[in-house]
Amino acid sequence: MSRWQPNARGRLEQAALELYTERGFDQTTVAEIADRAGLTERTFFRHFNDKREVLFWGQDALIERMTTAIAQAPESASAIDAAGEGLRAAGEMLETRRAQARRRQAVIDANPGLQERELIKLASLAEAMAAALRRRGVAESAAALTAETAIAVFKVAYGRWLSTAGRKDLTSVIGGSLDELKALTDHTRRA
Amino acid sequence: MSRWQPNARGRLEQAALELYTERGFDQTTVAEIADRAGLTERTFFRHFNDKREVLFWGQDALIERMTTAIAQAPESASAIDAAGEGLRAAGEMLETRRAQARRRQAVIDANPGLQERELIKLASLAEAMAAALRRRGVAESAAALTAETAIAVFKVAYGRWLSTAGRKDLTSVIGGSLDELKALTDHTRRA
Repeated sequence: MSRWQPNARGRLEQAALELYTERGFDQTTVAEIADRAGLTERTFFRHFNDKREVLFWGQDALIERMTTAIAQAPESASAIDAAGEGLRAAGEMLETRRAQARRRQAVIDANPGLQERELIKLASLAEAMAAALRRRGVAESAAALTAETAIAVFKVAYGRWLSTAGRKDLTSVIGGSLDELKALTDHTRRA
Repeated sequence: MSRWQPNARGRLEQAALELYTERGFDQTTVAEIADRAGLTERTFFRHFNDKREVLFWGQDALIERMTTAIAQAPESASAIDAAGEGLRAAGEMLETRRAQARRRQAVIDANPGLQERELIKLASLAEAMAAALRRRGVAESAAALTAETAIAVFKVAYGRWLSTAGRKDLTSVIGGSLDELKALTDHTRRA
């Protein structure tokens, strides 16, 4: 057998999501994932540290994209609009993966330990976003408030995107949710 | 020895916070907590299920206070203002416990497992708040967005309150953070 495994990572991810959905996350072993993908356990561990990482591997790249977009937002942009640029960049990255994202979310929703891990991921995104805003010169406390609020919007928008039947792309849902936030917090209006 | 232990819960909590601070959470046993408080392990387990619950026991009461305040907000209040009433009620309840809250936070900050538990607590607060808003007739999606945003504000305000040296009460810090959120998301201004 050749050592070259075309798209091994994608095949392992696909196999893992299938098995987590069919049997549950806790009931699935790495050996079974490798077997379903037609690969070896050794190949699995060349791509992922453990079976949980299959669900969470994109985090560093997501943070990188998000913080780069915040750094590149126009100098004149407000803190919340710079944060919005970060969310849209993250949205573009996730956009192409809606089918996997739906299956992934169903696995996470069924497992409290994975829900905790997902909350930690969102908290890490908020921290990275606050740091990126501070590097733009946003004051410490405004950076934290803006980042936590933006991630709250992201969490809601992501859930909406997953639950709608392919009608809107994630960046539009994020933009709509940000506009809705502005309307909700506008005290001259009634929500 | 009498079975009546005056303020056993408070003494156990105090002893636990001291030990968690001195030795770390993982290195402290229930036997040591009971011993430091001058009580028995049996008494400990009459008040808490485990040593982690000493740090998280107030959650149900907090949710109860918060959701009651949301239900009682004036009919004319917007979703975000009703949510603000909920946050202020939670703030009043926590207000009297700043000294314990500071020690508790230092213990949590030193322990990733406890940080996860704290994130789950905040997620539970957001869910309870969204449900309370829906009972006021707020639409599903606006309720989720408002609740997640309000809890983001609460998280930041709580951190600010803990880090300031007793100068402002928590309800004022929450009110100030809500006003700041409104200013941040007001697109006619620059943050």
